[in-house]
Amino acid sequence: MKVAIIGYGNIGKAVEQAVLTAPDMVLSDVYHHNDNLSRIKADVAILCVPTREVPEYAQLCINQGLATVDSFDIHTRISGLRQQLMPLDKQNKTVSVIAAGWDPGSDSVVRAMLQAIAPQGITYTNFGPGRSMGHTVAAKAIEGVKDALSMTIPLGTGVHRRMVYVELEDGADLKRVEKLILKDDYFAHDETHVIAVPSVAELNNVAHGVNLTRSGVSGTTHNQRFEFNMAINNPALTGQVMVACARAAVRMKEAGRFGAYTMIELAPVDLLAGDKEANIKALV
Amino acid sequence: MKVAIIGYGNIGKAVEQAVLTAPDMVLSDVYHHNDNLSRIKADVAILCVPTREVPEYAQLCINQGLATVDSFDIHTRISGLRQQLMPLDKQNKTVSVIAAGWDPGSDSVVRAMLQAIAPQGITYTNFGPGRSMGHTVAAKAIEGVKDALSMTIPLGTGVHRRMVYVELEDGADLKRVEKLILKDDYFAHDETHVIAVPSVAELNNVAHGVNLTRSGVSGTTHNQRFEFNMAINNPALTGQVMVACARAAVRMKEAGRFGAYTMIELAPVDLLAGDKEANIKALV
Repeated sequence: MKVAIIGYGNIGKAVEQAVLTAPDMVLSDVYHHNDNLSRIKADVAILCVPTREVPEYAQLCINQGLATVDSFDIHTRISGLRQQLMPLDKQNKTVSVIAAGWDPGSDSVVRAMLQAIAPQGITYTNFGPGRSMGHTVAAKAIEGVKDALSMTIPLGTGVHRRMVYVELEDGADLKRVEKLILKDDYFAHDETHVIAVPSVAELNNVAHGVNLTRSGVSGTTHNQRFEFNMAINNPALTGQVMVACARAAVRMKEAGRFGAYTMIELAPVDLLAGDKEANIKALV
Repeated sequence: MKVAIIGYGNIGKAVEQAVLTAPDMVLSDVYHHNDNLSRIKADVAILCVPTREVPEYAQLCINQGLATVDSFDIHTRISGLRQQLMPLDKQNKTVSVIAAGWDPGSDSVVRAMLQAIAPQGITYTNFGPGRSMGHTVAAKAIEGVKDALSMTIPLGTGVHRRMVYVELEDGADLKRVEKLILKDDYFAHDETHVIAVPSVAELNNVAHGVNLTRSGVSGTTHNQRFEFNMAINNPALTGQVMVACARAAVRMKEAGRFGAYTMIELAPVDLLAGDKEANIKALV
């Protein structure tokens, strides 16, 4: 299958590596943000643009009959995006896989499966340690902050600590910056520590992680315990998930199952390269 | 949906509990092993018979147009069962979900997803601590053994220790029993300890567990680490998985997607009770 990459930041570069190592894919083209996208030659377009631009780029590609994959990550708006793209995909006889990263994405698959096999109970998704993009951007916007990095630290039961490393502008006052950060809506509800450092660039690290737990009930039997952990390179995993979903999108399109899907609506076997029968033999 | 349970041992009873607690299911009937099965009134039959009898009972139900679910667990013969039931399901316009337990089953979903998101690497599935049915049956068949229990102990990297608890017949010699067990093909390849106990019944415990690990490569990035753990009541989990798959079988039948499927061919959302949109909002 021929794959186009739209957007060439961290995620676009990771997707490129995953496409080039996939045995069943050919990279047709990498389109930078401001390229002309009116005639993309590919079976599937992987959208590596900022989340807020996903709807616009998805429509542009779907209208050309391409399958699309994105890693749209605003949890509360995923269902809306799905509803928005669904009729377009059906009209253009194609398939979009949306919210295809690790959370939302592969974590969602784990959450759905654990809810199915222990329907009563509580799932906690604990993120990190790792950089939060949203919180980092919020901290960078504070007056007196030259550069910032907000790390998410898991404290268990879905509670997180924010460690905010700030590089101050000349003459900025740490106490004042700290006060502004602590009252920002991004930080006001969590335990937050603000630490001044000489260079934020020196802390740069794309490591991230998840600890997802569920204690639940199967039938009438309580105390069923489940745990999913990962410690990963964030853009590399996101890129690989998107590439696996690109494969599923093309297969579902070929099967005539047009529409917009989240990862919990895909069969895991469709994410895999190679022969379906062989994968069933090896993995079931 | 109306559910029939075929077979009423440990698993049949666990399935009954899971059906009775499911908000979208009605238990139509429980058929014991020797019941007349010529006119089952249900949408889906959950086959809780011994693994070797699954093909026979599945055919009997499929020929009546019922959807079926089984937890057939001989890994090397799952693909064969799928090939055998596939044309029957298509001919009778119905759906079978096969090998629907926790391994094969929900573990298979985790293995498939981890292979998709880190395609290069090694997955180790470590079982236990918990009772191995196959090894227990093999130990019970040894001359001089009145009752036995073989526990599987995980040593990591897919290597297991066998702890065999034996209740000896009057006058039986432990040394001789131990020798016979150690040379039995079930035990000859693993570290095995044989321990005499006054009562095997007193050790009875249906707890089991899994520690599944993968270290792999996403794109060109090595050292991606994943781990899935569970500590569960074995029949309760198997029963709940089968009930979740019964729901998926009926939904796929309604969608006209006739055939035989393993769990890695199902969309996780189809395993869940309730409204699809609401589940997507809650879990993605």
